Amino acid sequence: MENWTQGWLVYRHVEDVGNAQLTRKIKITGFDEEQPMVRNAVAEFRRGIRGMLGGSVTLVHAGAMREGVLVSCRQEIPAEGYRIREADGILQVEAADGPGVLYGIFHVLRLVAMEKPMRGIDVTCRPDNPLRMYNHWDNMDGSIERGYSGNSFFFEDNRVLVNRRTRDYCRLAASVGINGVVINNVNVKEAASWLITERYLGQVKKMAALFAEYGIRLFLSLNFAAPIELGGPDSADPFDEDVTAWWRQKIAQVYEAVPELGGFLVKADSEGRPGPFTYGRTQADGANMLADLVRPYGGIILWRCFVYNCTQDWRDTKTDRARAAYDNFIGTDGDYRDNVILQIKNGPMDFQIREPVSPLFGALQKTNQMLEVQIAQEYTGHQIDVCYLIPMFKEVLDFNTCAACPSRSECTAPVTCCEKRSTVADVVSGRTMHNGNAGICAVCNTGRDENWTGNDLAGANFYGFGRLAYDTGLSAETIAEEWIRLALSNDRQVVEHGKKILLPSRETYEKYTSPLGIGWMVTPMEHYGPSVDGYEYSRWGTYHRADWQGIGVDRTDRGTGYAQQYANPMACLYNGAETCPEELLLFFHHLPYQHRLRSGKTIIQHIYDSHFEGVEEVEEMIRLWKELEGKIEERIYQNVSERFVRQLENAREWRDQVNSYFYRKSGIADEKGRRIY
Amino acid sequence: MENWTQGWLVYRHVEDVGNAQLTRKIKITGFDEEQPMVRNAVAEFRRGIRGMLGGSVTLVHAGAMREGVLVSCRQEIPAEGYRIREADGILQVEAADGPGVLYGIFHVLRLVAMEKPMRGIDVTCRPDNPLRMYNHWDNMDGSIERGYSGNSFFFEDNRVLVNRRTRDYCRLAASVGINGVVINNVNVKEAASWLITERYLGQVKKMAALFAEYGIRLFLSLNFAAPIELGGPDSADPFDEDVTAWWRQKIAQVYEAVPELGGFLVKADSEGRPGPFTYGRTQADGANMLADLVRPYGGIILWRCFVYNCTQDWRDTKTDRARAAYDNFIGTDGDYRDNVILQIKNGPMDFQIREPVSPLFGALQKTNQMLEVQIAQEYTGHQIDVCYLIPMFKEVLDFNTCAACPSRSECTAPVTCCEKRSTVADVVSGRTMHNGNAGICAVCNTGRDENWTGNDLAGANFYGFGRLAYDTGLSAETIAEEWIRLALSNDRQVVEHGKKILLPSRETYEKYTSPLGIGWMVTPMEHYGPSVDGYEYSRWGTYHRADWQGIGVDRTDRGTGYAQQYANPMACLYNGAETCPEELLLFFHHLPYQHRLRSGKTIIQHIYDSHFEGVEEVEEMIRLWKELEGKIEERIYQNVSERFVRQLENAREWRDQVNSYFYRKSGIADEKGRRIY
Repeated sequence: MENWTQGWLVYRHVEDVGNAQLTRKIKITGFDEEQPMVRNAVAEFRRGIRGMLGGSVTLVHAGAMREGVLVSCRQEIPAEGYRIREADGILQVEAADGPGVLYGIFHVLRLVAMEKPMRGIDVTCRPDNPLRMYNHWDNMDGSIERGYSGNSFFFEDNRVLVNRRTRDYCRLAASVGINGVVINNVNVKEAASWLITERYLGQVKKMAALFAEYGIRLFLSLNFAAPIELGGPDSADPFDEDVTAWWRQKIAQVYEAVPELGGFLVKADSEGRPGPFTYGRTQADGANMLADLVRPYGGIILWRCFVYNCTQDWRDTKTDRARAAYDNFIGTDGDYRDNVILQIKNGPMDFQIREPVSPLFGALQKTNQMLEVQIAQEYTGHQIDVCYLIPMFKEVLDFNTCAACPSRSECTAPVTCCEKRSTVADVVSGRTMHNGNAGICAVCNTGRDENWTGNDLAGANFYGFGRLAYDTGLSAETIAEEWIRLALSNDRQVVEHGKKILLPSRETYEKYTSPLGIGWMVTPMEHYGPSVDGYEYSRWGTYHRADWQGIGVDRTDRGTGYAQQYANPMACLYNGAETCPEELLLFFHHLPYQHRLRSGKTIIQHIYDSHFEGVEEVEEMIRLWKELEGKIEERIYQNVSERFVRQLENAREWRDQVNSYFYRKSGIADEKGRRIY
Repeated sequence: MENWTQGWLVYRHVEDVGNAQLTRKIKITGFDEEQPMVRNAVAEFRRGIRGMLGGSVTLVHAGAMREGVLVSCRQEIPAEGYRIREADGILQVEAADGPGVLYGIFHVLRLVAMEKPMRGIDVTCRPDNPLRMYNHWDNMDGSIERGYSGNSFFFEDNRVLVNRRTRDYCRLAASVGINGVVINNVNVKEAASWLITERYLGQVKKMAALFAEYGIRLFLSLNFAAPIELGGPDSADPFDEDVTAWWRQKIAQVYEAVPELGGFLVKADSEGRPGPFTYGRTQADGANMLADLVRPYGGIILWRCFVYNCTQDWRDTKTDRARAAYDNFIGTDGDYRDNVILQIKNGPMDFQIREPVSPLFGALQKTNQMLEVQIAQEYTGHQIDVCYLIPMFKEVLDFNTCAACPSRSECTAPVTCCEKRSTVADVVSGRTMHNGNAGICAVCNTGRDENWTGNDLAGANFYGFGRLAYDTGLSAETIAEEWIRLALSNDRQVVEHGKKILLPSRETYEKYTSPLGIGWMVTPMEHYGPSVDGYEYSRWGTYHRADWQGIGVDRTDRGTGYAQQYANPMACLYNGAETCPEELLLFFHHLPYQHRLRSGKTIIQHIYDSHFEGVEEVEEMIRLWKELEGKIEERIYQNVSERFVRQLENAREWRDQVNSYFYRKSGIADEKGRRIY
């Protein structure tokens, strides 16, 4: 295989701020030194310290240690958690399990890398989310659906790859606390349907065993129609006994070969994929059938809620794709086994740069839920444009669903009234319902590119998602700074400029693309670059409904009624054009171009202004980046510079097409008289 | 290979209208019976008569013949011409050469098939165009660029196929007078670049020899960068002696292997293909270099004029793709060797349903010219929608270029003033300039489908183009009737309904697609189905410039000046919105939606009306077709019926998207209050 970088585990030489003395020795107590996670933690520690501070690290097997790192077992530490505290030259890393040790050591390495003195430290960390997963949309031919970083490093020519890069991937994932990985595309077709057969189970086992050494459970995406496609019964009906028998035998075979397997992810009844609806069954019927069969092995079923009609007629203004997930799943609340988790996209549409939070969160009161976000930049710049997504994920996690508010259905007071552990973060962490099968996952943005993520700066999303999943209290800025220091440099200007580029980048992208939450307007299928009407007359349920007078989709109680899927406080908020958060105004309302925003600006003028601003902000990013030449690795500097050229071209194209489109349609001139075509 | 039909050479049983007696015997005099074209003519005759009239046909080798067909050699008959006359029971077919014999026999068979009595007949035919060609855009992997009838029957898996289907193809082509065929795509890449090497020359020879048996010369599309790609000099500069030497040796090798080869077709400096411009040379420099080298072998060079900037910025309203062919070639008029023919598309853009005629015709006064049309329905319905194109080709051929008018540059009188052999038909037949290297070619619509053309009705274009190329005086109706009788049935209702479907089908397609000559508005790349803005913000130079007030491209002397590329009478006509033919109004003028056409109707109302009418006309076609069930072969009935379902859906989609687009943009309601979305 080709060469690749070490991402944020590059362990470049750093200044010793007093940490060297603390890290010359390491000793393990209470854990078996040969336990794989412990062994890997020690190996990582020695590698990291050697790289960052020079010299070697001694593993002390017995006897007293005057100074150094002491890893010890403390059962009262929560699972996958750790405590780091320094006293008298001994830096104690306490944990109850292997993952805790790994995460604790990575934390120590992070502090050293960021040149943070550890004398007197005392921090305790525990994961906020039980499940913290990457979902890879890798196909077995090596391609990646929505992959912008080269081909797959998991698959090639219908073979499963397990090699040095797999291990480096595990190190990166574990270093940010990821504990579950789905290795194959949710659209399971062709060779991938055979992953659960002896053709591939040997290699899957090898990969799962390697993953386990880093505290990561391997999951497979499953083809719900597998019985039919693999030569079993000619049905996938979950109520058909032949089908159940076939699955029972199949799952036994899989778990016999791969006991480490975490379970399965299923995309059913979606975009042409078969599912329970095909047989007149509910989604719960389908999920439960599989859940019962994997339960004896400790397996779980991740069931995607991305179910909608993808053959909508654009002339039909009654049907609303945004409603689909809620409509399809709300009736099954409470029907699922406890080892089923519904995996819900952050928004009701599909990973647009701005969407409201899915109303399923919180509305489901008796069902395990998992938040699905996308760090693969399908609609957010293809890892050509910089788009640091952690601020968006923070917004989603902070969204108050009113799930636990006793009067959630009546309450019309301001949303701040209900703060009883009912944010999305509360729901998916299990705090709201006290459930353990919950969490957060991201459609991953990696590939075989040298730097893993196409644009080096997209590494901040790969890194940041994991960090946020482990500790949802971290700010987007903290995460950005960590990544910059680890991956780029501790240089003050690099850190400052890096943050100035990353932190506003999501809003910059939003400014030069589709306005006020309306979404889409992208080149069909490809999803990069503008095409204002590209999805306007399509079957995908993705419309802006712009005419000479106005724009937007009426999703209020006078329109599709989507707003009413929220708990009352939010429903009321969204339902009124005056109260609706303006960044989502056109998602919920069809309004005239002359409608005035709270700023006093009209919608049409907002469109013009924000598009000019977006391009200017990209120009400013480029200016900032240029000042970093020579202060960061040349390869990274060049990689990002080259992407910035393309981002600027893209931003200009968006600006001009969107502005021209609305000018040509509305006939309303830009108040500032700028060039519109 | 799979099965396939015999197209219009199906020779189904017909009524004997007195022709049986005349065709029981055939005798050859003045020609060698074993000359391949004569032998094939006799074989075809026996096959045809047997099929249509039953019984057998005797080939009389010697002695007198009281009744029958007498093929005789008459040197005064023009090349590829023939005379058919009957007297006293002898039907004489006279010709000066093999093609004349073949064409004469096919004429006789056509008469028998159409149940036309031949007693007393006396007709003389000669080809109007020296070159009558099909251009195939077949790739060596078996795919066909813009192919809508299955894969290639010339190529498969990078192999050249010569088999029974090749012969049937030759029979079909020869039966309508085709005498040249380019077998491979003008975009010559990968394996196709190697067609001129020993890897393929053996098979090319085999195919060329078979073609020759039917009077067809085989041509190859050439990669102008072949020297570089085939390991010769690292240049394709026509002035580089190494390049010339390489080509000399290469062409000698090719002609030694394939002496029958007609020559080469070259698409240079177009859509990413290299050419003389790459080296600062003129198109003439490139063409002449090759022409000099093929001259000793009697070869000719067909040089395409499809040269334009395909990376235009949509913001740029000065550049006009329509101008490109003229601007790039007019300066080289007279610079070409006499064995070079410039191959000019019928219109200045790219095979839209309605375009003005290319101003190059006639403007080039000292250069061989060939008309290129497209029967592959790239922009005209993909052989799903019925679109009989012969009426369009007739319009093009009848267009008066004023080429031979002595006062062509001054004259501003009505166009009818100049009728001195200056129509496109005159120019490309060689009548205007008395040149022999001229003619007409069509991008072909065949593939491996059972019926050759996807939609059986598309066979009318495959047939009709050849017939028209041979005899430009034939009417579109005559040709349609011939094809219907041969391919479908002589039944009166089939003939009547068939004509009612075919003859207006081009205008029907025009009605439900883009209005008033503006073109495009198709799904990008695919070119089927509507996308009004699909090419509006693209790099392809294809814009409608619609805004809230109006639509159209100003190509007058106040705009891009394209209209001024025509001789004065036409330039004046097109330049005025009042005089411009209305079907081309928006091609030449940007006008408000409220502009009134001569009918008194506004442009916007015309858009609405024509789109509703287009769909109604498709419904009428379907009604007519349904009445033919049981009167034609069931396979054909079903094939066309299935396509009609898709055509109707397509027409409705076009109607609704175009009408909605302009309603949403203009805000002007349909006067008749019909449903617009």
